[in-house]
Amino acid sequence: MVKAYLISTGTELLLGTTLDTNSVFLSRKLAEIGVKVIGKSVVGDNPDSIATAIRTGLASADLVITTGGLGPTRDDLTKEIACEVAGAEMKLIKEEEERLRDYFRRRHRPMPEINLKQAMFPEQATVIPNSLGTAPGMFLPLDNNQVIICLPGPPREAEPMYENYVKDLLIKTYQLTDSPSASRIIRIFGPGESQVEEMLQEIMDKARNYNLALLASEGEIIVRVTAEGQNQNESLDILSKVTEQINQIMGKSVFGYDDDTLSSVVAKLLCNRGRSVSVAESCTGGLLGKMLTDIPGSSRYFWGGVLTYSNEAKQKLLGVKEETLQKYGAVSRETALEMAWGVKRLSGTDLGVSITGIAGPEGGSKEKPVGLVYMAVVGDNLEQVREMHFVGNRAAIRTLSAKSALDLLRLQLL
Amino acid sequence: MVKAYLISTGTELLLGTTLDTNSVFLSRKLAEIGVKVIGKSVVGDNPDSIATAIRTGLASADLVITTGGLGPTRDDLTKEIACEVAGAEMKLIKEEEERLRDYFRRRHRPMPEINLKQAMFPEQATVIPNSLGTAPGMFLPLDNNQVIICLPGPPREAEPMYENYVKDLLIKTYQLTDSPSASRIIRIFGPGESQVEEMLQEIMDKARNYNLALLASEGEIIVRVTAEGQNQNESLDILSKVTEQINQIMGKSVFGYDDDTLSSVVAKLLCNRGRSVSVAESCTGGLLGKMLTDIPGSSRYFWGGVLTYSNEAKQKLLGVKEETLQKYGAVSRETALEMAWGVKRLSGTDLGVSITGIAGPEGGSKEKPVGLVYMAVVGDNLEQVREMHFVGNRAAIRTLSAKSALDLLRLQLL
Repeated sequence: MVKAYLISTGTELLLGTTLDTNSVFLSRKLAEIGVKVIGKSVVGDNPDSIATAIRTGLASADLVITTGGLGPTRDDLTKEIACEVAGAEMKLIKEEEERLRDYFRRRHRPMPEINLKQAMFPEQATVIPNSLGTAPGMFLPLDNNQVIICLPGPPREAEPMYENYVKDLLIKTYQLTDSPSASRIIRIFGPGESQVEEMLQEIMDKARNYNLALLASEGEIIVRVTAEGQNQNESLDILSKVTEQINQIMGKSVFGYDDDTLSSVVAKLLCNRGRSVSVAESCTGGLLGKMLTDIPGSSRYFWGGVLTYSNEAKQKLLGVKEETLQKYGAVSRETALEMAWGVKRLSGTDLGVSITGIAGPEGGSKEKPVGLVYMAVVGDNLEQVREMHFVGNRAAIRTLSAKSALDLLRLQLL
Repeated sequence: MVKAYLISTGTELLLGTTLDTNSVFLSRKLAEIGVKVIGKSVVGDNPDSIATAIRTGLASADLVITTGGLGPTRDDLTKEIACEVAGAEMKLIKEEEERLRDYFRRRHRPMPEINLKQAMFPEQATVIPNSLGTAPGMFLPLDNNQVIICLPGPPREAEPMYENYVKDLLIKTYQLTDSPSASRIIRIFGPGESQVEEMLQEIMDKARNYNLALLASEGEIIVRVTAEGQNQNESLDILSKVTEQINQIMGKSVFGYDDDTLSSVVAKLLCNRGRSVSVAESCTGGLLGKMLTDIPGSSRYFWGGVLTYSNEAKQKLLGVKEETLQKYGAVSRETALEMAWGVKRLSGTDLGVSITGIAGPEGGSKEKPVGLVYMAVVGDNLEQVREMHFVGNRAAIRTLSAKSALDLLRLQLL
């Protein structure tokens, strides 16, 4: 597999105010032709740092792509340093000089002599035209089938230069075809990251022509499976076998693939089953309703709901009994159930879902600590309550509560 | 000047799908205490690459900060490699083990043995507590006054760890003082970015010892003012003068400063004025209620509300008239007002706020296109409706709708 190392130069990229979008663009584009980015580096306009970064890249990758530092000023040194590291001598290229002079002539401006360095390249380099600025790029082949590519910093210049020239040069140089690998994301809700890893240990240990990467994000565990077959078909074949194995082990906690979200999966289930739903939310304050309506067309299954943040609202809108609130408290299995039945009755929907809990940071006690959340799903012949103990700040507890309620609803719909 | 080198680890950061926000955060924060970031690097979960990056950093910087790779899995190797490069031996730290076991105990889950490596540190290291996850950070002092700092990958864990521990450790280690510059964020809602830029043009042109940077984000315009005086006092002085000028020009559209949000500002106003509020939401499906309850202690002003996504719910819960829906439609000035009055009546709160609109992508027509949203705020001697035409996808229209309703509420409370 062809490996790339990306270097972005420019002091402004180190201040935390300008995002390095070039490397994000290149990562995505290179993946499309089967080139794997193995690392990237951002350096200021400092000759030593730029040289070190290029040497680091050449030590482990086939190609190094730099962006930035091709301008006419004394700070712009990337091309010069790349040539120095490569041991390639630059010369003034006549036709590039002519192009530059023409650029300024057409703008009725004199060309500063300093710009001439933008017309200097080693003989073995391919000059990459820049139709939007004065800085051409450079494609410099080295020994060992390695390449250094220099592109300008502004994305609106660098992106078309990649698309129109660099991509084809890479395909030709490395005889690339469309990437033979195939990948898929498997989305899991319920178990924690280390638990998933333990459960998938055997599949990970056996990995030969595929690999798994785990990532935890807002209560979800994301498993990325990448299959590396001899060709696309073989990769897809491996992918479906590994997916099947993971599904067998993880069971119902696999809720979706790739771009699926808990909201989109629940929406699909509700539509397929022809069921309608309403919500009664306390500590989440509307987040569950928001998630259920993230999906276009949610009016097909979502009737509406109530935000019963105060106890008064719970009694008045949902008919939660005074007695229940006094005996068990607003955060209890009993109140969660009365809320869910209350909103089902009020709305006439097939299902009622409720959440009540303590999102914190205040309001917790020893018996009922911050993070204690009850959620219920009720319907004809159905009554489910889940008790959860979430840890985190207020925002995390609320997000986990709403997702966990969606997950409970999903499991009832399966 | 103290120099830092940042390393972000994680294969997902090389795919072009996940942004490396940690290094952006750290760059900004380090600048505040006068530490200069001289380079940064992103590497996959590959031991050699991580080691090379750490060595590169130590060769030119005083401190190296890594993010990511502190999890329990076999891919998580950053701390181990940092210790190897530093020649520091790790041991099981008893109290960290206890903390971990406690973490799992509180979640009623068994601790996988694999997690134990998160309790291993060299003796000379300072363990940085992580209140939101299982992975503590590490502050490892080396010879020559150099330091390696390891933080976890999730920004919601890494950011508070920097703020609460790393910052002070750095100030102590390098005897830093606060930078003589001072900066402030001024938050604006209402006018667009180019409109704000035009209005502030003169202040920007006159800038000598300060500068302004504008950024648009989810309907807000964020103006960052940085003052560069001879010392902190002079900078603060410049800052307050420029802030005053901006406030005079922008008027009430300035809603807050620094970490303020529309939610926090509205919450403060409601508390100060002793007013209670309830909401009636249609197209936002709960997002307004969610925003009003983002703030701890929101039960002091938020009674609750209703999500009247369907017309039936609007009539049944809020008493919106059949006639109004037929004559003007669900997305109209009239329906918005009836919804707001309806929820105020239902709840008995001082104020009622409503939103009804077309979030798309379907459901628009020539007369009522996607993005048309009405919001109303009503109370004793108060009745305000706002008609907005938002552009963007479903998520953007919903976010802008909820924020715009918060802003309308804010203006009524001023």
